[in-house]
Amino acid sequence: MPQFLKLQPPFEARLKLLENLPQFTSEREEIDTLSALKRVLACDFYAPHPLPEFPRSTVDGYAVKSADTHGASESLPSILTFSGEAPMGQTVVQSVRPGQAILIHTGGMLPPGADAVVMLEQTQLNNGADLEIFRSVSLNENVILIGEDVHTNDLVIPAGRIIRPVEIGGLMSFGATRVEVNKRPIVGILSSGDEIVEPATQPQPGQVRDINTTTMSALVIESGGDPRPYPIIPDNEETLSQAVMKAYNECDMVLITAGSSASTRDLTADVIKKLGVPGVLAHGVNVRPGKPTILAVCDGKPVIGLPGNPVSALVIADLFVRPVIRKLLNVSDAVFHPGITARLTANVSSAAGREDWVPVILSSGSDGYSAEPIFFKSNLIFNLVRANALLHIEADVTGVLAGAMVQVELL
Amino acid sequence: MPQFLKLQPPFEARLKLLENLPQFTSEREEIDTLSALKRVLACDFYAPHPLPEFPRSTVDGYAVKSADTHGASESLPSILTFSGEAPMGQTVVQSVRPGQAILIHTGGMLPPGADAVVMLEQTQLNNGADLEIFRSVSLNENVILIGEDVHTNDLVIPAGRIIRPVEIGGLMSFGATRVEVNKRPIVGILSSGDEIVEPATQPQPGQVRDINTTTMSALVIESGGDPRPYPIIPDNEETLSQAVMKAYNECDMVLITAGSSASTRDLTADVIKKLGVPGVLAHGVNVRPGKPTILAVCDGKPVIGLPGNPVSALVIADLFVRPVIRKLLNVSDAVFHPGITARLTANVSSAAGREDWVPVILSSGSDGYSAEPIFFKSNLIFNLVRANALLHIEADVTGVLAGAMVQVELL
Repeated sequence: MPQFLKLQPPFEARLKLLENLPQFTSEREEIDTLSALKRVLACDFYAPHPLPEFPRSTVDGYAVKSADTHGASESLPSILTFSGEAPMGQTVVQSVRPGQAILIHTGGMLPPGADAVVMLEQTQLNNGADLEIFRSVSLNENVILIGEDVHTNDLVIPAGRIIRPVEIGGLMSFGATRVEVNKRPIVGILSSGDEIVEPATQPQPGQVRDINTTTMSALVIESGGDPRPYPIIPDNEETLSQAVMKAYNECDMVLITAGSSASTRDLTADVIKKLGVPGVLAHGVNVRPGKPTILAVCDGKPVIGLPGNPVSALVIADLFVRPVIRKLLNVSDAVFHPGITARLTANVSSAAGREDWVPVILSSGSDGYSAEPIFFKSNLIFNLVRANALLHIEADVTGVLAGAMVQVELL
Repeated sequence: MPQFLKLQPPFEARLKLLENLPQFTSEREEIDTLSALKRVLACDFYAPHPLPEFPRSTVDGYAVKSADTHGASESLPSILTFSGEAPMGQTVVQSVRPGQAILIHTGGMLPPGADAVVMLEQTQLNNGADLEIFRSVSLNENVILIGEDVHTNDLVIPAGRIIRPVEIGGLMSFGATRVEVNKRPIVGILSSGDEIVEPATQPQPGQVRDINTTTMSALVIESGGDPRPYPIIPDNEETLSQAVMKAYNECDMVLITAGSSASTRDLTADVIKKLGVPGVLAHGVNVRPGKPTILAVCDGKPVIGLPGNPVSALVIADLFVRPVIRKLLNVSDAVFHPGITARLTANVSSAAGREDWVPVILSSGSDGYSAEPIFFKSNLIFNLVRANALLHIEADVTGVLAGAMVQVELL
């Protein structure tokens, strides 16, 4: 008889799992900065010098002494002497003296003596010599000062940040063409079951192709981990135990998608218990799909037993595998789960006390978004293929009626 | 003097750009299915056979003839004869005859003669022989029939779908270990400017490191394209023209981040105009940051002139480059922009008639999310590094007050 020790609410179970992980000790590796897209920065990055390194104009215009423009207006312009052009990409040696103006381009170095820039549109050059200024500028107007973006030794990118295009740009602005990132945790992936065969194999009657190994590999890649798939394991304690031990020794984390039967799931739990302490933290989680989930930390390594059902395995991996990989990677960025408000097109029932995740087809119409729940027996994989979002039904809700406005999360 | 022909609203400009792209003609390539994660399926995928291929039990229990259980209850169980166990992963040859029950595991093949499965929890086996059934089951209860997931020749994954872990699972369930995907469009990336130097170079006074080439490369990778960076181009029509022509001939799309000055931007537009028809569709877009954007399609190839300012370039690339790459990839999936509702912490002003995208720091507190606008001169790159979301201010809004609830989009 299947025995779930105690069905735990998913949120509590996840908290317990994360709390039992050891302090972060990931190894680092140095890679090209452009390849670091979506990787996790290993160390705090401090500015080696200020940015910008010289005062720059933010507009096309004339570098001036701001005092020379005071009181300037359309009806009573200040008249300055045009005194040449500041070259781009070079030290500007020519000074702006009182009464002078030097033509400058956006991004160009402010000439010595200038303390502001008048926009081109607010000037008029007559006879190539007399420059009319139609508006006064204040001190440092249209100028970025040295260090206005960052000062030397500013913490500009904290360790644990997932590197986006903008961080790559930030690193490049300091010439950091190589960067240290945290190594991807190696995640061992095992599928067990007497009825499953490798995807490339032609199944015999009674057999089905294993799809969990590849879906979990893909999900691990998406989450920032490095999947290590192992061969399929028959439902037999000795073989399962040896295979799990091997993966446990070789990897930073182990996922086991159990055979579908209750006895196999219990077998998985027994095998996990032998790996180390504290061992199994949750055996059974109060969520549909995914009840027969096993969450464990064994001597510092997370080991997760996932339901054999491929749809359940995907939903559960979102809830438990992704956050664990984030923690193994030392990701510090907050996770936001943006929901989309949509009108539910059919009634959805849910047992009280149990969280439900219902796949939906989200579509947009003239009156906003609608979410069509996909009902299915046994979580057929191609029903999930049709879905593009999940409706989350909290444990204290017993159902949602057609027409209700609900929040769905994109898949 | 800089001349924007006419500032176009971003939405209209994008529509015009996409409408002028030719019909999709992307080349295909066959790759390993697991490597196809996030790639775009090239052809409609039809089911080569039904799934499942044999009737399967969805629970652990006993395969029976449903008629034998009619009227069964806790107080008056049906009594059937325990007649062995259906092996997992093999053809089940033993038939269920009237009055018989065969033990079956989740996912196992339903024995011939059986038409339903009674859950283990609703039975009791006495003396290893007599099986009490406490609840009646109806025809096909707890069974998935042949083809209940998909039938032969069902369209199971449409061309243009971005491949997620679940699609990889679906393909594997048919043994499709290789798959045809659309080739990534090659996107040429050029940065021009007399003041910019390669990131690995030590800038001299007046020079700054080029960061647009790498931020745009990263953004192109994120969007599914294949970036091809070119060397930095000085601000000179002849050199720019030659470099752009080379990239145009070698790539499927060209991005040019112009030198920051107005004259250079006009130079870029002049160079683009020579490449083909219809040529420049928008020169200047009514959005901040990013006004000096040039959108063009030249003899079927998109060419986009981006602002030299790195922050503007990133915002504009989100608005225009990503959708173009999606179209070049023939992506058919709907785009949903889930917003997060947050309380704005400071007033934000905006000119009427102009769309604004304001970087914000989104954080969560006990009373929900808050969005802190980042104010900056000239779009300093490290200010955008601090941001994790963008506040979109529509063109007809002149500002948003502190305390207002706003929708922000995650960066």
